[in-house]
This record gives sequence, structure tokens and C-alpha cells, in this order.
Amino acid sequence: MKSAVRIAITGAAGNIGYAAAFRVAAGNMLGTDQPIILQLIEIPPALGALEGVKMELCDCAFPLLEDIICTADANVGFKDVDYVLSIGSKPRTKGMERADLLSENGKIFGPQGKAINDNASRDVKVLVVGNPANTNALIAANNAPDLDMRQFTSMMRLDHNRAISQLSSKTNTPVTKIKQMIVWGNHSLSQYPDISHCKVDGKDAKSLVDDSWYKEEFMPRVQKRGAEVINARGASSAASAASAAIDHMRSWVIGTDGDDWVSMGIISKGDYGIAEGLMYSFPVRCKNGNYEVVQGLSIDDFSQKMMKATENELLEEREAVKDLL
Amino acid sequence: MKSAVRIAITGAAGNIGYAAAFRVAAGNMLGTDQPIILQLIEIPPALGALEGVKMELCDCAFPLLEDIICTADANVGFKDVDYVLSIGSKPRTKGMERADLLSENGKIFGPQGKAINDNASRDVKVLVVGNPANTNALIAANNAPDLDMRQFTSMMRLDHNRAISQLSSKTNTPVTKIKQMIVWGNHSLSQYPDISHCKVDGKDAKSLVDDSWYKEEFMPRVQKRGAEVINARGASSAASAASAAIDHMRSWVIGTDGDDWVSMGIISKGDYGIAEGLMYSFPVRCKNGNYEVVQGLSIDDFSQKMMKATENELLEEREAVKDLL
Repeated sequence: MKSAVRIAITGAAGNIGYAAAFRVAAGNMLGTDQPIILQLIEIPPALGALEGVKMELCDCAFPLLEDIICTADANVGFKDVDYVLSIGSKPRTKGMERADLLSENGKIFGPQGKAINDNASRDVKVLVVGNPANTNALIAANNAPDLDMRQFTSMMRLDHNRAISQLSSKTNTPVTKIKQMIVWGNHSLSQYPDISHCKVDGKDAKSLVDDSWYKEEFMPRVQKRGAEVINARGASSAASAASAAIDHMRSWVIGTDGDDWVSMGIISKGDYGIAEGLMYSFPVRCKNGNYEVVQGLSIDDFSQKMMKATENELLEEREAVKDLL
Repeated sequence: MKSAVRIAITGAAGNIGYAAAFRVAAGNMLGTDQPIILQLIEIPPALGALEGVKMELCDCAFPLLEDIICTADANVGFKDVDYVLSIGSKPRTKGMERADLLSENGKIFGPQGKAINDNASRDVKVLVVGNPANTNALIAANNAPDLDMRQFTSMMRLDHNRAISQLSSKTNTPVTKIKQMIVWGNHSLSQYPDISHCKVDGKDAKSLVDDSWYKEEFMPRVQKRGAEVINARGASSAASAASAAIDHMRSWVIGTDGDDWVSMGIISKGDYGIAEGLMYSFPVRCKNGNYEVVQGLSIDDFSQKMMKATENELLEEREAVKDLL
């Protein structure tokens, strides 16, 4: 039996955290041969509810779950952790300006980056889910000077999975046969869901769908899917976000399949002309716990424009939080 | 690749149904080589929210999930299903008498049994989770004359798992080393969590804990755990109930481990002196999709008394719904 790994989940009593914790404990993220210690982190007012989450996790008698730590102290919560699902963040409230949202979250993710820097395993892998995820991850990465910035990532996998699902539905093809999807840039309305390189059961996706469907239906639908779910369900995406977080980490740790790739928000090294140091979503292949940006993809004028637009938004976000970097 | 199986979930937009659907779709119930079609059933006012659940399930791009049907029509929802997670029920509201609760649910589970009888696969396996689960399952079973009553079961696995967890914590032993736990009878305060036959890392459980702890702390804690979770979390057990439902079905379909057993509410054939035809929880071993009551366990006077008390409650419940059987 492998020795246990430590997984921190912030915002663990919230809806996404709650949906994630049980699937992680069931072995969905790292496999059913990997024992787990969960380190659940919440803000002080939510510690009572977090205790209830812990009770329910115990009540599942999960074979893999060796221990559960509940805390509001980041130095305790991130102690020796191997993986971080950073889910908790300050949501946008009515009338809040984007600059306020960024700076309110900066107050969370700066100290969080430092606490991870000071306490986590030196090989820690961090996924930021809490919005604005890219810039929150950027702030955390910049506040962890002893770690490699590549250890901090942001979640684009929900957008990636949504894009696969929409194309699957349109082409009446199983999701398992949709390969090489990309969602570039920011997890926001400016994201660019790109099917230029995508294969549908081996065929070029663009040869199977109208350009007007692609640009006028598919793209906005993927970009605005969060709102569509809220309208229907009366609550924001929770289980699907948790599932994407699990997928992101599993791909990173266990690897991507064959020639396929996934979309991850990572620190740009300048690939495809994207400004260095931004937390930007690229197509990546993963192997042995590492990821590499897929190289050599041809970028047409439309893609170039879309990739720039979402880059520009991230540049503005970075500018707004520059004091925290 | 196996061909897809059809799994109905009632109350699929509720908290337990929501927690169950994603884990089922991820392969947690029947394994990661078993494709799935989900048939999600809700009452008409919840169909909008159910559409949101469907969106999120699609957004996960689960490899195993071939199709999702959403309906308020039981004849559509149960059509050709191989498995039923019957989760939706009428909760007890303030001031409601037990007889009212039973009869209100009878109005749901009588027609549900008939719809399963008329539409489901002849080999369907039904698990009733919605409370009062035992008597709801009894009503459904009695309204499905063309099926074997053994195809209808009620959930005691949450109680069973809670009992394992409490004993694990008390004896500081991993849950994987706690074997042969039993919870007898009704999923209610009268249930009897019985450690008389239980082994803790090979040792008799009763030799490791005080009798006073067993009777005055362990038993009431397991019996009243639902209330403890509500008090802490501000919401009733959802993910742990869903997890227990998945465990119940997985044990039934895939089998119990070695010499171990699980607790399931099943139609009594008179084993251990329990009245025939009650939906009563017994220890069972499962193999090849079947279950058999564990035979030959010695029952001491205390156990006899506790088993009778919970039997008496189920007899009263049956009497209260006799017009529906």
C-alpha cells in the first residue's frame, strides 16, 4: 500500500468544496490505491458547517481516507500538503467593481500563496478554482518565492469539458471521441474555446460544423455556460466544477491520454506570443507529474485575435493587482 | 466495451440525488468499465432544476455517460431500467403525525412500485433511500406483483457505515479492519447497531470497548447521527447518504468482500424470528448479484430485545399502510 498523500481543500464547506471532497476521498482523483489525508480549510464562520462535512466524510467509511483535519489556520491547513484544491474565494457581490473583486481576492490569495510557500511539500501541486481563478493563482504563485511558479495552476478544465460536451452533442459523437479541444486564456467571458485543432472521431471538427454555429452558438454558449446553469438550477455549478477540478489534477498527476491534451491555466513562458508571467490557459500534455505546452499549432487570424483579447484582459487584471505580486 | 445499463434516480434534483448522480456517472457504483444511461425523475415543479443537473452532468464529459433522460413521468423514467435509486420522498414537516407521513409516502411508493413493475427490466434491482425507507420499499415491493419482492431493498448502509466509523474512531483502527458489523431492523431511532459479531483487526469488538460505551454512547450516536449532522452542517446528510446508496448497490451487484457482510433492508423470510414479509435490515453476503442472509449467528438476550423492538415498530408501520399493500 502506498503511503498517504495530503490534500488541502479550501472552501471545503462550500458547494464546490463539498462536491469535491467526497469524490476525492472515494479515490476519483488519484486512484483507488492511493490513501489520503484531507486537510479542509474554511473561514472561521464556516467551521461549524465544516465539522458537519467532516462527520459526513467519516460516515462514508471511505477505505482510502486515513485522516481529516479541519482548520481556519492556513499554516495548519497547508502543512506538508502534496496537493491543493484552492476553491474558496470571495464571490462578486452586487454592485462590486472588477477592481474591488480583484483586490478583495488578492487579500486572500497573497497570504494563501505565502502559507503554501512556508508549509507545503516542496513538490506541492496547486490548482486554483476560486474566481477570478487565473489572477488569484497568479497572486498565489507570486507570493510563494521558494516554489516554482509552475506548481501553481488555474482551472480551465470546466470550460474545456463544457466545450467537448457541446461539440459532442452537436455532432452526435461520444465525448470519448472528441480530442484536442482547446480553451485559451482567462476563465471569463473572454476565454477562447478553439476547435481549430479538434478531432471528432478522427475528423477535423471544423469540417463537421458550420462556421456560424461555431462562432455564434458554440463559443458564446461555452463562455456563458455558468449563467445558463444558474438560471436552470437556481444555484451555480458545483458538482461539475468539482468534477473538473478532479479531472485537472488527475491529468496533471497521472498524465494525458496518448496524443490528446487538456487546457490548463499556467504561467506563460511566452509560447504563442502570450506575455510572459501571465496565468493563461494553454493546451498541455501531462506525463509523470509534469506538463508541457503543446508546440507548433498553427494559429489563424481569427484565433490570433481571440487569443489576444483574452490575453489583454489578463494583462489588465495583472495591472490591477500589481501591488500584490 | 460492455453495453450501457439504465439507472433511474428519483428526486434527482434534491441534495442526495445531486450528490449521487455525479458519482454514479463517474463509475463509482458499477465500475469504470460500465457505460451508463441515467434516467432522472423529479416532480414537475423540480423539472427546471433537473434540467440544470443534466447540464452539469453533460458539462463533466463523463466517459461512461451515454445518455441522460429527464422526466416527471414514472413510466418514462423507469422504462427498461436495470437499477433504481429511489431517493425522492415526502419529508416529515412540522406537526405531521407518523401516520400522515406514512400515508403521504404511500401515495408515492404505491404508484412507483407499479411503474417499476410495468416498465423496468425484469432483473431490476431497487434501492429505496427516501424515508421512511423500509416501509416505502415495502409498499413499492407489494405493488410490483410481476417482480420478486427480493428485488426491492431499503437503505441501511448509511447506518452500517456510521457504525463502522464510530467503532473505528473509538478503537483507533482503520475502517478497513472493522468487519462483520450489523445494523438490524428499521432505518429509524429504533434501529439496532450490533457489534456482537464484529471484529476489529481480528479481535472481538466487545472485548475492546466497555459495555457502557457501547450501549450509552455508540448506539444512540449511530441512531441519532442524522440529527448531529444537521445541527453541525445546517443541512441534512446528503453526500454521505449518496455514498451509502452507491456502496449498497455496488455490494449487491459486485459482491461483498471475503467473509465480510453488509446490512441491507430486505423482505424478511422469517430469519432470526423476524415476522415474514417485513422490510427489515439483516446482515447479508452478496455474490453474483444475489444476497443471502448470514445464518447461524448467536443472538443474546439484549440483542433479542433490541431486534424485537425495531421489528415491532416496523409491524406498526406495516399496519398503518396495510391498505396500500
